[in-house]
Amino acid sequence: MSEKLILAYSGGLDTTVAIKWLKENYDVDVTAVLIDLGQPDNLQDAYMRALDTGASKAFIIDAKDQFIKDYIFPSLKANARYEKKYILATAIARPLIAKILVDFAEKENASMIAHGCTAKGNDQVRFDVGIRSLNPDIKIIAPMRIWKLSREEEIEYALKNNIRINVTKKSIYSIDENLWGRSIECGNLEDPWSEPLEEIYKWSKITKNEKDEEDIEIGFEKGEPVSLNGEMMSSPDLILKLNSIAGSYGIGRTDMVENRLIGIKSREIYEAPAAEILLESHRQLESLVLDRELLHYKYLIEDKFSEMVYYGLWFTPLMKCLMKFVEESQEYVTGAVRLKIQYKNFSVTGRKSEYSIYDYSLATYDKNDLFDPKFSESFIKIWGYPYEILAKKGRKNE
Amino acid sequence: MSEKLILAYSGGLDTTVAIKWLKENYDVDVTAVLIDLGQPDNLQDAYMRALDTGASKAFIIDAKDQFIKDYIFPSLKANARYEKKYILATAIARPLIAKILVDFAEKENASMIAHGCTAKGNDQVRFDVGIRSLNPDIKIIAPMRIWKLSREEEIEYALKNNIRINVTKKSIYSIDENLWGRSIECGNLEDPWSEPLEEIYKWSKITKNEKDEEDIEIGFEKGEPVSLNGEMMSSPDLILKLNSIAGSYGIGRTDMVENRLIGIKSREIYEAPAAEILLESHRQLESLVLDRELLHYKYLIEDKFSEMVYYGLWFTPLMKCLMKFVEESQEYVTGAVRLKIQYKNFSVTGRKSEYSIYDYSLATYDKNDLFDPKFSESFIKIWGYPYEILAKKGRKNE
Amino acid sequence: MSEKLILAYSGGLDTTVAIKWLKENYDVDVTAVLIDLGQPDNLQDAYMRALDTGASKAFIIDAKDQFIKDYIFPSLKANARYEKKYILATAIARPLIAKILVDFAEKENASMIAHGCTAKGNDQVRFDVGIRSLNPDIKIIAPMRIWKLSREEEIEYALKNNIRINVTKKSIYSIDENLWGRSIECGNLEDPWSEPLEEIYKWSKITKNEKDEEDIEIGFEKGEPVSLNGEMMSSPDLILKLNSIAGSYGIGRTDMVENRLIGIKSREIYEAPAAEILLESHRQLESLVLDRELLHYKYLIEDKFSEMVYYGLWFTPLMKCLMKFVEESQEYVTGAVRLKIQYKNFSVTGRKSEYSIYDYSLATYDKNDLFDPKFSESFIKIWGYPYEILAKKGRKNE
Amino acid sequence: MSEKLILAYSGGLDTTVAIKWLKENYDVDVTAVLIDLGQPDNLQDAYMRALDTGASKAFIIDAKDQFIKDYIFPSLKANARYEKKYILATAIARPLIAKILVDFAEKENASMIAHGCTAKGNDQVRFDVGIRSLNPDIKIIAPMRIWKLSREEEIEYALKNNIRINVTKKSIYSIDENLWGRSIECGNLEDPWSEPLEEIYKWSKITKNEKDEEDIEIGFEKGEPVSLNGEMMSSPDLILKLNSIAGSYGIGRTDMVENRLIGIKSREIYEAPAAEILLESHRQLESLVLDRELLHYKYLIEDKFSEMVYYGLWFTPLMKCLMKFVEESQEYVTGAVRLKIQYKNFSVTGRKSEYSIYDYSLATYDKNDLFDPKFSESFIKIWGYPYEILAKKGRKNE
Repeated sequence: MSEKLILAYSGGLDTTVAIKWLKENYDVDVTAVLIDLGQPDNLQDAYMRALDTGASKAFIIDAKDQFIKDYIFPSLKANARYEKKYILATAIARPLIAKILVDFAEKENASMIAHGCTAKGNDQVRFDVGIRSLNPDIKIIAPMRIWKLSREEEIEYALKNNIRINVTKKSIYSIDENLWGRSIECGNLEDPWSEPLEEIYKWSKITKNEKDEEDIEIGFEKGEPVSLNGEMMSSPDLILKLNSIAGSYGIGRTDMVENRLIGIKSREIYEAPAAEILLESHRQLESLVLDRELLHYKYLIEDKFSEMVYYGLWFTPLMKCLMKFVEESQEYVTGAVRLKIQYKNFSVTGRKSEYSIYDYSLATYDKNDLFDPKFSESFIKIWGYPYEILAKKGRKNE
Repeated sequence: MSEKLILAYSGGLDTTVAIKWLKENYDVDVTAVLIDLGQPDNLQDAYMRALDTGASKAFIIDAKDQFIKDYIFPSLKANARYEKKYILATAIARPLIAKILVDFAEKENASMIAHGCTAKGNDQVRFDVGIRSLNPDIKIIAPMRIWKLSREEEIEYALKNNIRINVTKKSIYSIDENLWGRSIECGNLEDPWSEPLEEIYKWSKITKNEKDEEDIEIGFEKGEPVSLNGEMMSSPDLILKLNSIAGSYGIGRTDMVENRLIGIKSREIYEAPAAEILLESHRQLESLVLDRELLHYKYLIEDKFSEMVYYGLWFTPLMKCLMKFVEESQEYVTGAVRLKIQYKNFSVTGRKSEYSIYDYSLATYDKNDLFDPKFSESFIKIWGYPYEILAKKGRKNE
Repeated sequence: MSEKLILAYSGGLDTTVAIKWLKENYDVDVTAVLIDLGQPDNLQDAYMRALDTGASKAFIIDAKDQFIKDYIFPSLKANARYEKKYILATAIARPLIAKILVDFAEKENASMIAHGCTAKGNDQVRFDVGIRSLNPDIKIIAPMRIWKLSREEEIEYALKNNIRINVTKKSIYSIDENLWGRSIECGNLEDPWSEPLEEIYKWSKITKNEKDEEDIEIGFEKGEPVSLNGEMMSSPDLILKLNSIAGSYGIGRTDMVENRLIGIKSREIYEAPAAEILLESHRQLESLVLDRELLHYKYLIEDKFSEMVYYGLWFTPLMKCLMKFVEESQEYVTGAVRLKIQYKNFSVTGRKSEYSIYDYSLATYDKNDLFDPKFSESFIKIWGYPYEILAKKGRKNE
Repeated sequence: MSEKLILAYSGGLDTTVAIKWLKENYDVDVTAVLIDLGQPDNLQDAYMRALDTGASKAFIIDAKDQFIKDYIFPSLKANARYEKKYILATAIARPLIAKILVDFAEKENASMIAHGCTAKGNDQVRFDVGIRSLNPDIKIIAPMRIWKLSREEEIEYALKNNIRINVTKKSIYSIDENLWGRSIECGNLEDPWSEPLEEIYKWSKITKNEKDEEDIEIGFEKGEPVSLNGEMMSSPDLILKLNSIAGSYGIGRTDMVENRLIGIKSREIYEAPAAEILLESHRQLESLVLDRELLHYKYLIEDKFSEMVYYGLWFTPLMKCLMKFVEESQEYVTGAVRLKIQYKNFSVTGRKSEYSIYDYSLATYDKNDLFDPKFSESFIKIWGYPYEILAKKGRKNE
């Protein structure tokens, strides 16, 4: 009897030819799992393609709510960005997919999991380490890492094997999409000096007039966005709405050179209108309710959190500890942020919270402020003591 | 005989009435020092006002070159921003002013230094600690910290004492300016929910049409900008030019709530077109030439550097050590960055360097790449070993 | 009617004369609170002295269990040491005392709290900030900070006012003690070059013969010590027993120069036999059950935790976040550590845990090990890729 | 014509049979390089053995001075310890050996370097990455990683091939030694619960009586030890002398479980009498001359430095930056430390420096101290402001 294999199936060329290849090279019964994280693909069509190509079973799993709750929001609370820019959309999706695959494998009694990653990216690490962290007994197969074909050879293989593929509109770019963002690589982007063509952008295509602008207000509760312009909204709706509004003004593009885990640099373009808006809004609200010591120390935690996510180390003890830190820090991150959305630009113009520790009576330069000036001089005296002592000992640090 | 006092003189109301007040309250001979850091004030006029008001001597010091070389560029190399945003323009100016004042005091045999800071800001800390770190024997007097007058009372005092002041255009905002940026506080900004009025902006007033855009190219050598659009340029010229170009597109505004050193939050607006452009360009060039371990660790150094500057700890041993780290990191930060400047927006669209460690032959997904895929699987095996072992021991970290 | 004041009363000279002084200088009704944290003082005698000297009421509070559970154990889990050495015994006691005082003040409707700290130590900060963090409406009075008397003048004042004091054995040292440790300052210790006299030690006085030695085994559950030599034991008993055993071998002394919060250095001697044994045992157990990434990152958390405690910032948001991190990290710190206790020396000679991730079959150099050597070469290939690329570009880092 | 190969030759069994094996498996001409880092081996004997076994040439290089100057002293200045304990003796030797090998290869026009590391240790990483960082064109061969033989099979191979080996005293332990320390693994140590046998210790064998004790004084200049008991001494002599003195009291043993780079834990024993004495002395001197901010921040740098060394990343840009930081920090680490050396124990009993910033007149509790108590209360007021504001807003952090 064949062993069971769970395939992370996207509907694209790679994983479609992989169904055939896996059956040719292993004595396996393939179950294709399609996971809906908000990507705009036609999953029904992909579902049929999986079965047509030889999968014994196929499943479409709507994981959007779990994705937001357990992956997007923790990342938002951690202000997560890899190398100060990348909002980690693909990186946070991988551990969730790994988890769903392992759950499937355990339920279906499958001994293998396959995914479509190549040998040069970060995603192979995230899948492999994620799966092994959750169930080290499952064998992992990555056809594209073993079987090195060019795109043309893949297409040829598909035609020869009567595999129904969907490559009419041939793109030279490699794309990944989910609710939190869209990433674009390859093509002329592989030269870090060359300017991205306007055609690569999809989520941030400008449809607004240059004179257009609008104010929006985002409400947060314990670090999570819950309302838009005063209206409570489900999380997927809120993110989709923000992607649509901000995207129409051309907001949310990132162009960067980043360091992959496997020791090489790559040039990446990201589009993430909602994520950019929410990350800036969240930080601005934190600036109002977190005290300085927590805020500054949290920067370290944020950098480490982001690095861990990028490096595929989601299901690890350190990640759990970082999560606890971040979660605790959000207790009072409740309030509202107002932004002005303009042509290719946005800025936070106001922030308020019932937990605000901005204190007007202390901060104002008005005559009736409550700050007692006599404290300052003494504070500074002690603050500078060590350096005054150094200077007295002849140790000036110019 | 009177003791000599060196006054950090700006030409404004506070330090002008301070000349009179100092002479009334201490038996001192006042030398007014005006330091040119690129602020747009009429220093000749201020010079005359100092003498007219009772200063025995006055000096105008052009410190722009030193400011750029020893304060702006080190901050740029450190990608310095306080609380992720503020580019520290005022904060880096204070230690230089302190140093010039101490040098003057030593040369002129003065036993006192006076400055115009109030009891609630950060600048008093930067001046006091700076001066004490350089010469702990000098007595520091801050009239505004001792003598709490409202603006109206100051004007009244000036009129009563025939002090020639320059307050025709009365602003409700408190402004500070130098080459690196302009800061704005007070007025309606003291409510963090209220939107800044367009009238407060000066450097980033938009004069361009919404359809305008231009590409610029900035050349760097060891982390310092040296050319604009291929033309070698002196540092002050380059910064002024960038302020003018980027400012005309409305670029360089920051609206934030920040944590002052003395334990309170305040709302600040900054305008810094050149600084924003240069900081982003510098980081993008670093992404091409620094290896990942240095880049990620440097983030910590950058946060600490920024905090130290904001906290007034420039002339300290830790600062010197951080400087050495940063300086060494810039050895290969040489190359060029191309940016597209648009209406209220800019982005880096290309970066190149003879020291680039982006390696096309490794990064490309082309068929003829040089990356050997067999390494990846083994690398991941070891990378994930600890978490596989944990899982084997029943310690899953979901 | 007099206002009520809660006094942190130790029974010593300072707080005894303070009762009288407070009543002379404020219209207050003094309630003396004696808090038992395991210090060896005669609290019954102190209780009577408080009432005799003019306190309206006095209370003895046994806070040992709470001290261990909420202050000592969290510190142990965080491997807390200030400046790599000081085990923070006094520093962790202060917030607990502040909390008890505030609870008393709220219960008794008192508007003031007084403590016996001087103006130069760290404890004034810990008390003041602790109290204000818990109830900012309470007025804090520190008689010794206001009323600067020498010890001789204090004694004279006591005699003149018929205050019954207990200063027969006059010590030139300033001592503080509780379950977790004993600290000694002043006397000849104020010269950091001078050797401490043997007479200052009390907990680590050697009563063992040089040939004596014994093995002990400490059992931990989730980071907390629960058994000694296989016997389950209450926490106070376990700590007292360890202080007694290890102390008799002369173990647990620290001699250091440390940086106080208020900007000056001081020389301190500490005795903490149990704390030293438990901290080393805890770390050794962690080395067996924590994975590398958590272990290394926890070092940062430990340093920050220790600094926060020393700086009097216990009841703060950052501290709560650090606690959550530390608590989560201890989930599997369960097992046993065996130590050899010898003359002036101890060392951990074994550690074991059901959650150990030490894997003999991978670690051994035996022939039948399970580690596949082919992984290493590829791992190293990728690990060293960035530096190989640097070298290829002519950027060697010798 | 054969290609030239440089072999890192130790004289032991592994590298001796490797000479034969290399010549059998590759068409190479072997040059054996023996590097003297203070290990007690008979290098003359090893030299002859290399030639007898088939090496074309052999060299003995005395690298002790360079080892101390460029590797030991920087580590001492960085207070380097891996996982808080291991003094990194072997880890810092590897990059130096790599460098000497590469220099030889370049001088001799050799295209290959071979070393005797196995596939499971850290040293293979340090050699491979070190060599590739210095010259990526050299091919690296690690016979023991390719050719997996047990010790018995190696001996058999040696006998069969008439290879003169030196294995009369067969040890079950794996040992590495140089001036800075001795490491011991394998045997019963592979069970982390089992107690090390006394027989494994060589450098710390006790020859002193339990009553013996002596005071020693170590002089430092800019972080480097230069004198012992007042006598200026060459660095190798000083280290050897300290190893001998402290070792005779049984000082310098470490028993730990550590995390290897390749993802597994191992149990290690180290002996390093001089290193332990010098590291503690250095830290104590730093406590006297470094200000708090530098001292605390340097802890981060120290942990990273140690991790980098252990991970084989010596010749990297980040390491150079860390070095610059550390070097700058040592400018004033000049002075003397006095220690009491006792049976199995030592402690620093005094430290002094012309650059000391311990200030008796500020630190003392004497009546005539110069510390103005009025500063404290105001300092604390501002220090605790944020937490008082939190409490006023109802945000208590108990």
